[in-house]
Amino acid sequence: MGEKKLRLGILGLGNMGSGHIKNIQEGKCPEIEITAVSDGKPARREWAKETLGQDFPCFATAEEMFASGLIDACLVAVPHYDHPKYVIECLERGIHVMCEKPAGVYTKQVKEMNAVAAKHPDVVFGMMFNQRTNCIYRKLKELVDSGDYGAIRRTNWIITNWYRPQAYYDSGDWRATWSGEGGGVLLNQCPHQLDLLQWITGLPKVVEAHLHFGKWHDIEVEDDVTAYFEYENGATGVFVTSTGDARGTNRFEIQMDRAKFIVEDGKKLFMEEFPMTEQEFSRTNTEPFGSMKCEQVEVETDGKNPKHAGVLNAFADAILHGGKLIARGEEGLRGLTLSNAMHLSAFLGKPVEIPFDDELYYNELMKRVKTSRRKTNVREVVAEVGNTFRGTESNK
Amino acid sequence: MGEKKLRLGILGLGNMGSGHIKNIQEGKCPEIEITAVSDGKPARREWAKETLGQDFPCFATAEEMFASGLIDACLVAVPHYDHPKYVIECLERGIHVMCEKPAGVYTKQVKEMNAVAAKHPDVVFGMMFNQRTNCIYRKLKELVDSGDYGAIRRTNWIITNWYRPQAYYDSGDWRATWSGEGGGVLLNQCPHQLDLLQWITGLPKVVEAHLHFGKWHDIEVEDDVTAYFEYENGATGVFVTSTGDARGTNRFEIQMDRAKFIVEDGKKLFMEEFPMTEQEFSRTNTEPFGSMKCEQVEVETDGKNPKHAGVLNAFADAILHGGKLIARGEEGLRGLTLSNAMHLSAFLGKPVEIPFDDELYYNELMKRVKTSRRKTNVREVVAEVGNTFRGTESNK
Repeated sequence: MGEKKLRLGILGLGNMGSGHIKNIQEGKCPEIEITAVSDGKPARREWAKETLGQDFPCFATAEEMFASGLIDACLVAVPHYDHPKYVIECLERGIHVMCEKPAGVYTKQVKEMNAVAAKHPDVVFGMMFNQRTNCIYRKLKELVDSGDYGAIRRTNWIITNWYRPQAYYDSGDWRATWSGEGGGVLLNQCPHQLDLLQWITGLPKVVEAHLHFGKWHDIEVEDDVTAYFEYENGATGVFVTSTGDARGTNRFEIQMDRAKFIVEDGKKLFMEEFPMTEQEFSRTNTEPFGSMKCEQVEVETDGKNPKHAGVLNAFADAILHGGKLIARGEEGLRGLTLSNAMHLSAFLGKPVEIPFDDELYYNELMKRVKTSRRKTNVREVVAEVGNTFRGTESNK
Repeated sequence: MGEKKLRLGILGLGNMGSGHIKNIQEGKCPEIEITAVSDGKPARREWAKETLGQDFPCFATAEEMFASGLIDACLVAVPHYDHPKYVIECLERGIHVMCEKPAGVYTKQVKEMNAVAAKHPDVVFGMMFNQRTNCIYRKLKELVDSGDYGAIRRTNWIITNWYRPQAYYDSGDWRATWSGEGGGVLLNQCPHQLDLLQWITGLPKVVEAHLHFGKWHDIEVEDDVTAYFEYENGATGVFVTSTGDARGTNRFEIQMDRAKFIVEDGKKLFMEEFPMTEQEFSRTNTEPFGSMKCEQVEVETDGKNPKHAGVLNAFADAILHGGKLIARGEEGLRGLTLSNAMHLSAFLGKPVEIPFDDELYYNELMKRVKTSRRKTNVREVVAEVGNTFRGTESNK
């Protein structure tokens, strides 16, 4: 190796951890070298040795890997509950850290994590929000943030194409349990959309959510969600998700004062730019049935979507050259806030204001954890990732 | 005239009444002859004489027209509150009656109307649900009702393309007031979609709605609505409408056990037919990330959409030859039930079960009517209909 590479450890060799290893092995991250891995499960360490070499440093515990001196940075890809714990360990040891989504399961623990991060500004802390690298969402954010189109009036995201059959839920005893994941579709599949939503439109002020628990599957957590938002400026929003729709939809719409945006399937961005704001038109127009004419156009983007590898490359760049992260670690709190607010609204059966009481949420969650049933007869699937990793970008 | 025509009176010469007259004059209703009209406003009767001839029977009151002996049937196109009153008068006089939407403003009065209709099965009573003639919605209903696709799991209608500028609301003192219309976008613009929704998917069991009153306009009624539904079988739904989105959306999606349907803009029907029900796939599939493959296809229809004229022609056929109506008058109650349930949910700030207490709704509405402010400085617009009548199909 000529130039210096980032020595990266992978903590957790499930679907995501193993997917990252494949990406790096395929040469997508030229400034990163995997120098150690860690997983508590012998079968997964066995897989790592087959993949990375029989002498490759495979640790049974995170602590051994952290103490090994072999890594400068760590990618945390363990089950959600443990994200903050390991991120904090890394931060305190001066190990740069990239955290898989979600940042954690409940805001209280993520705020603790962010407090530690604030004490270690020298340690680089990133979140794996790989969908922020999608040219479509980058362009949409740029347009919304530009100030050219006034304020947001309405948001609507139907993201029901997270289909999961029962076999998915039967593939791990922690899956879709209160004690193992702390939630369902909102914690496992949707963190990307919840992050993109808050990134592009900001957080709402009020959340009212209808969650259905085990509606389409034999699980104890939510697999069907319809949420209503109200934003600070009076805008409203709708968010619908499910893992039960065999052929779902991914359609995100934003209505602004001077434009309308639609993202279809995360792949196409359509826009209608109005000649003036709706307010100005309504004030000046004299025709009872008057309306503004404009064409819907497909917006051009730079076409780039480097996904997980792009997030890791920016992480390496931030560490090695002081570059900019795709998503700062602290920002993981925001999407989780939205997710927790939806859960809390459903738990309490009423609208929830943001910020809500973190302690209350924690207590409500722990009630459910106490009576949580770990599944039996699961068929553990190791690194069942190949096409799905690239296909849906979010499988744990 | 060789064969016998239906002698039709038009009650109310506002946007809708005058639009129907134009349709009939253009020869779209060969079995209908307009034989009298009635409107309380002299300017509108003047317009009628200019249009239909100086000697044409133009009455200042409905009663005079009903008693004239000149009509066998009447089209009621007066402001909403008076629909049931005039329909009842017609039914009791044996005058066949076609009622413009909505059937009325509150369910209590519409139930009274339907009770009178039940006593007069010999009098033909139809509702002007012209969007039921649209080949797209007819086909969708046929497919949903076929039984081939299992149960409905999710409905989602974004119908925000009812844009109205302030000039629209300023064009009549009764417009968008509690006392004049008894509601806003739900009573005036949306009755078509509310009817189509109940016609195709059935009525929900629970409705929770967020209404915003005078949000985008200087009016006292709702111009922004987000509603959440739960159906008897556990399915959920979302309904979003507004008159404030300069360039809105009309997109209706239904997810069923074995198919997904999307109607875009009332013009195209797309479908994905699954190889088996989601339940069967989930039960038999063993791949954690397994999913069913299928293509989205555009569904062919008969291409016909005879709109208002089609509804009137079926009405004439029912009277003259015993044919079938597009929509029976009694069915107007169903869409109004949905609309009133949304209002009631917003008035009470909680979910409402269907059926709800009609008396409670009436009392809540009357509270608002009592403090309703009739607008001043309105610029009355007569028969400002031309392109909008055909364009959006619902302007009053």
